[in-house]
Amino acid sequence: MITQISKTMKAIKKTHNTVGMTFQQDVPVPQIGPNDVLIAVTHAGICGTDRHIYEWDAWSSSRVALNTTIGHEFVGKTVKIGSAVTRVSLGQRVSAEGHIGCGTCQPCRTGNGHICNSVDILGIDTHGCFAQFVAVPQENVWPVHPSIPNEIAAIMDALGNAVHTVMAPGVSGKEILITGVGIIGLMAVTVAKAAGAGKIIVTDTDDKRLAIAKELGADLALNALDDQWTQQARAATGDQGPSVLLEMSGQPTAIKDGFNLLRNGGTVAMLGIPSKEVSFDLANQIIFKGATILGINGRKMFNTWYQMQNFLLSGRLNLKPIITHQIKMQDFDQGFKMIQSGQAIKVVMEIPQHQS
Amino acid sequence: MITQISKTMKAIKKTHNTVGMTFQQDVPVPQIGPNDVLIAVTHAGICGTDRHIYEWDAWSSSRVALNTTIGHEFVGKTVKIGSAVTRVSLGQRVSAEGHIGCGTCQPCRTGNGHICNSVDILGIDTHGCFAQFVAVPQENVWPVHPSIPNEIAAIMDALGNAVHTVMAPGVSGKEILITGVGIIGLMAVTVAKAAGAGKIIVTDTDDKRLAIAKELGADLALNALDDQWTQQARAATGDQGPSVLLEMSGQPTAIKDGFNLLRNGGTVAMLGIPSKEVSFDLANQIIFKGATILGINGRKMFNTWYQMQNFLLSGRLNLKPIITHQIKMQDFDQGFKMIQSGQAIKVVMEIPQHQS
Amino acid sequence: MITQISKTMKAIKKTHNTVGMTFQQDVPVPQIGPNDVLIAVTHAGICGTDRHIYEWDAWSSSRVALNTTIGHEFVGKTVKIGSAVTRVSLGQRVSAEGHIGCGTCQPCRTGNGHICNSVDILGIDTHGCFAQFVAVPQENVWPVHPSIPNEIAAIMDALGNAVHTVMAPGVSGKEILITGVGIIGLMAVTVAKAAGAGKIIVTDTDDKRLAIAKELGADLALNALDDQWTQQARAATGDQGPSVLLEMSGQPTAIKDGFNLLRNGGTVAMLGIPSKEVSFDLANQIIFKGATILGINGRKMFNTWYQMQNFLLSGRLNLKPIITHQIKMQDFDQGFKMIQSGQAIKVVMEIPQHQS
Amino acid sequence: MITQISKTMKAIKKTHNTVGMTFQQDVPVPQIGPNDVLIAVTHAGICGTDRHIYEWDAWSSSRVALNTTIGHEFVGKTVKIGSAVTRVSLGQRVSAEGHIGCGTCQPCRTGNGHICNSVDILGIDTHGCFAQFVAVPQENVWPVHPSIPNEIAAIMDALGNAVHTVMAPGVSGKEILITGVGIIGLMAVTVAKAAGAGKIIVTDTDDKRLAIAKELGADLALNALDDQWTQQARAATGDQGPSVLLEMSGQPTAIKDGFNLLRNGGTVAMLGIPSKEVSFDLANQIIFKGATILGINGRKMFNTWYQMQNFLLSGRLNLKPIITHQIKMQDFDQGFKMIQSGQAIKVVMEIPQHQS
Repeated sequence: MITQISKTMKAIKKTHNTVGMTFQQDVPVPQIGPNDVLIAVTHAGICGTDRHIYEWDAWSSSRVALNTTIGHEFVGKTVKIGSAVTRVSLGQRVSAEGHIGCGTCQPCRTGNGHICNSVDILGIDTHGCFAQFVAVPQENVWPVHPSIPNEIAAIMDALGNAVHTVMAPGVSGKEILITGVGIIGLMAVTVAKAAGAGKIIVTDTDDKRLAIAKELGADLALNALDDQWTQQARAATGDQGPSVLLEMSGQPTAIKDGFNLLRNGGTVAMLGIPSKEVSFDLANQIIFKGATILGINGRKMFNTWYQMQNFLLSGRLNLKPIITHQIKMQDFDQGFKMIQSGQAIKVVMEIPQHQS
Repeated sequence: MITQISKTMKAIKKTHNTVGMTFQQDVPVPQIGPNDVLIAVTHAGICGTDRHIYEWDAWSSSRVALNTTIGHEFVGKTVKIGSAVTRVSLGQRVSAEGHIGCGTCQPCRTGNGHICNSVDILGIDTHGCFAQFVAVPQENVWPVHPSIPNEIAAIMDALGNAVHTVMAPGVSGKEILITGVGIIGLMAVTVAKAAGAGKIIVTDTDDKRLAIAKELGADLALNALDDQWTQQARAATGDQGPSVLLEMSGQPTAIKDGFNLLRNGGTVAMLGIPSKEVSFDLANQIIFKGATILGINGRKMFNTWYQMQNFLLSGRLNLKPIITHQIKMQDFDQGFKMIQSGQAIKVVMEIPQHQS
Repeated sequence: MITQISKTMKAIKKTHNTVGMTFQQDVPVPQIGPNDVLIAVTHAGICGTDRHIYEWDAWSSSRVALNTTIGHEFVGKTVKIGSAVTRVSLGQRVSAEGHIGCGTCQPCRTGNGHICNSVDILGIDTHGCFAQFVAVPQENVWPVHPSIPNEIAAIMDALGNAVHTVMAPGVSGKEILITGVGIIGLMAVTVAKAAGAGKIIVTDTDDKRLAIAKELGADLALNALDDQWTQQARAATGDQGPSVLLEMSGQPTAIKDGFNLLRNGGTVAMLGIPSKEVSFDLANQIIFKGATILGINGRKMFNTWYQMQNFLLSGRLNLKPIITHQIKMQDFDQGFKMIQSGQAIKVVMEIPQHQS
Repeated sequence: MITQISKTMKAIKKTHNTVGMTFQQDVPVPQIGPNDVLIAVTHAGICGTDRHIYEWDAWSSSRVALNTTIGHEFVGKTVKIGSAVTRVSLGQRVSAEGHIGCGTCQPCRTGNGHICNSVDILGIDTHGCFAQFVAVPQENVWPVHPSIPNEIAAIMDALGNAVHTVMAPGVSGKEILITGVGIIGLMAVTVAKAAGAGKIIVTDTDDKRLAIAKELGADLALNALDDQWTQQARAATGDQGPSVLLEMSGQPTAIKDGFNLLRNGGTVAMLGIPSKEVSFDLANQIIFKGATILGINGRKMFNTWYQMQNFLLSGRLNLKPIITHQIKMQDFDQGFKMIQSGQAIKVVMEIPQHQS
């Protein structure tokens, strides 16, 4: 198989200091080191992070180098393995963890590579998967169970964020509040339902997404623009407040309301990234409550992936209402625009297979 | 209301050193101390422990004093409160935790009253609830949510055992094995399903109970008399073995098979009480596996009760196939015989209300 | 003994809307309810909270009713027990937990009475222990081990804050940072040392307290006014940052520096109460770090008390440099003034015994 | 440096189906794969496992292949690195984790490589470190901090067992019992002391080792041959029993006594390997107690190693009384005989450096 791989490929890159991305036909296929694996990508998901890069916001313009191939959610087949690779074989259907740990820092050596001191992220710090081929270290490769369809295998990185956020505090039999039902927030609803949440309350400002949240199993979906929402949320928990808050909005108002609603002794899992600093009334929102706050980042490597596989195989997850669009790679620009407009939630691209 | 309570009542007592129990018409209504509450029992459940006392086996004959009123699972209404009672009011619909802690030992003072150093158990060490009236300390009283029907409120003590066993190891998204689906084992199936278990495998020697387990949500129900069962259980977990074992049989063979199947790093919650000592290959069954074993006893006071209430209110539990019979108090002997024969699983007695 | 108690006593009260407290000679001895215990106070500690009340700051003037007897740290002997009391006997040497839980809310019923939904605090919401007699519920009474001297038994409430803060994240073998070595911070140094901390770094702006911290076992004591302190702290942890931060200052700058220094995957225990809102860079200080934040309040009832007793009995705590002054009750005003000036750290008052 | 390594070396091998080992002069230097590192061993520790192989007991004769180079505790310098090695450099002073995980099973991929489903152990399943050179995968290499002396660096594998056992249940401020003070048990005493144990009680049948345990910080050392020992142990814990049991003997009697003494709600960490099955009264020893049992195996990779490094750097460990003998490699037979006789506890061999 190795000799069949040509030297160039199609890829989507960030090439200019402006909004947008560029589809290129003759990008060099990535070289692989002795511990790397080359994967022929078949499907790739567009993430909110990709949108930031597309829009070239303050964060992405300070972090991403021009000419980087974008993308970190995908599924494909291994087509070439490095000379020292022992844990992956040719022809495997795989996805991959997008956080590439250094392998030598304390987090990496204690099963916490997701918070590696010098992590590289696929498609941000290295060339990513919006391409016909992507190279990743063998340690990052995740063999995909045959019963998981491609459009879901393509978005396990994102789904893993939701699984990590839900499983960190634990939700079995608990009354939980999810503030913000963007892509990951909606995934968190179906994951929390599968994970045994006793009651799921969600809030957002978008009625369409609230409706999808209900379809996915939310018991109560409250529009945050309604100034009665916090009273309704409290009432729905027997006036105790939720015992778990999954903060997935990054919005200061939602964070404030969520912490205020939180029950004494409750736990907050924070995933949403605020665009600026957020102010806390530490005494009343955290200390006197005896609250626990968990910063959530990436996916536990690979505990989250095993949990995710178990949830997927259990048949308890409903991702259909979330994967709203499947498009061709060359139509990526339309994909980004549908996400921007709110028309699409999760968009999965089909990557054309290389002709050898 | 207080003056309306007569001095005698109907009660079921252990009166002879032989099989059986005695229905008495003129038992003195219990006296209450300043911190006690008197409850008019409306419904009471028959527990496996009550059966042991009925059959007067080695354990019960060494522990239970003759003339004790039996029973510890019930629901009723408060009709009299002690002079120092502040946390319970008259006319409340309540159940009660049957483990009566001393209140002064370390377990009691650290939220672990279920393993009190000198615990008294209702209907074993004190007069129980197979009677028109029962007295319990105010600390043991559990107000029952209005939406929980009487036949379920009557068996919360038993259901709490199942909730405690399931929640101690945690089952969200995990592949679990339940060895033994007697009353508590069957309850554990529906609780584990509600709590988000990824895959539930059960084993027992009784096909009828295995069928109920499947009805309650077990993914795989294996008869332990089939010598292929362990291979089937292992195969169903991708050859890894379950990551959680709920041991509810007390049978040495089931314990041995369960520990052998357990995955490396797995957790065992042990509830079933063996009738004699059990032998372990500690090296291979526990140490090299890095296994965790949790002894489960009673219900956490009252964390388990809150969890149970949440599960009940979530509508995710299915207890109908478990509560097979509801009978009149005076028919108790028939109830015990149906349990002995395997015809009944959980039997709930209706207690006649006292005419004031 | 009961008949020997006169009807009036000496007590220190907050009587005016100004700085200061009032020593009164003829305060009525508290009445006790059936589950209460009356204690003849022998020694009482002055807490930072008492100082706030003395100074009548914004918080205390909004919370404390005039005419309240102040004080919540003490040791004494039981002299009268309520009619329903069973867990305490006459003549016991006792201290007491100052958080009086309602007993009926979820925190109270799950071993978390320290975060009771409607907690009353001794000497703030009820009459306190700066008096010859104090009444507390039997559930709050803590029998003091005979080998613990009075001046230490008198400050177990405060020491318990330190034990709770240290034990919540766990410090065994870890490199920890304590921001703020006021009374509780200094106690935390000796507790952390006893609890097995691998390396203890402290920071404060007061050189005298930093010197005491070193005497108590801090490996490194850094003045926060020195702008090199964060680099020094980082270097002392092999450039990783501490894995545990005990935030005991309530100062925004210390909080910010502490969170920035925290290692990826680290844990913060927050005890210090800021006087206003504090701003966080959630992305970098909590989320990307995968940090865990624990709000610490009061003492776990009574897990913290058992831990504290074990530490005291182990002989591993050094509280001598912290209890700087022991004074007579009538000299209380001088005690407060020495605390204000920084001359004293912990002041323990001797309470004159009532002549029957 | 690479060219300076000759093709043969001195090594200690198991060559015959009888007691003893063989010192060979012309053993081929191990080949290394692309991800392996070759280390010139300078010091190696003799472990109890090595003694089993020396004595060729039932376990070792069924597990170890003849001609295997023995040994798994060592320190040395890297002299050759595989072509794909990126995490280790030439000339580093290193030790190594002896459990070689497969890297692909669930335990390996979730930070639990110590319980890898198909672990190889250095010097048992692969050629070990009783040789001038040893080859290990780069992932197993542990860089040794410069301040740790060679004789201690040489035994980190064994010390890690003690650290793992102590840290799994946690001992801060707790009253603990250690049953069995062989090499690892003695190490556990000093580790537990450093980790903040409140009171350390040890038991063994060897007065000499009990004396060393006291020297290392045990508060009470009881000879198990004295039939009063369990009463004394109980009395020393205020009649509660220890809250943590570290079982390091593998002796059925000690296990039984230890479990019987364990406090309700207590935790047992089991490291000692019994030579046959052990019988439990599950009801009274585990279930009614609400006990937690933790199987301990190897060292957490590499959490235990970081903890160990912190303890060593803290200066709180005392290993001098444990490392009783340092000998030359060629005197290994005398080393084993001193261990057999009880004259030696831990023996460290100095390995002659190869002349290039």
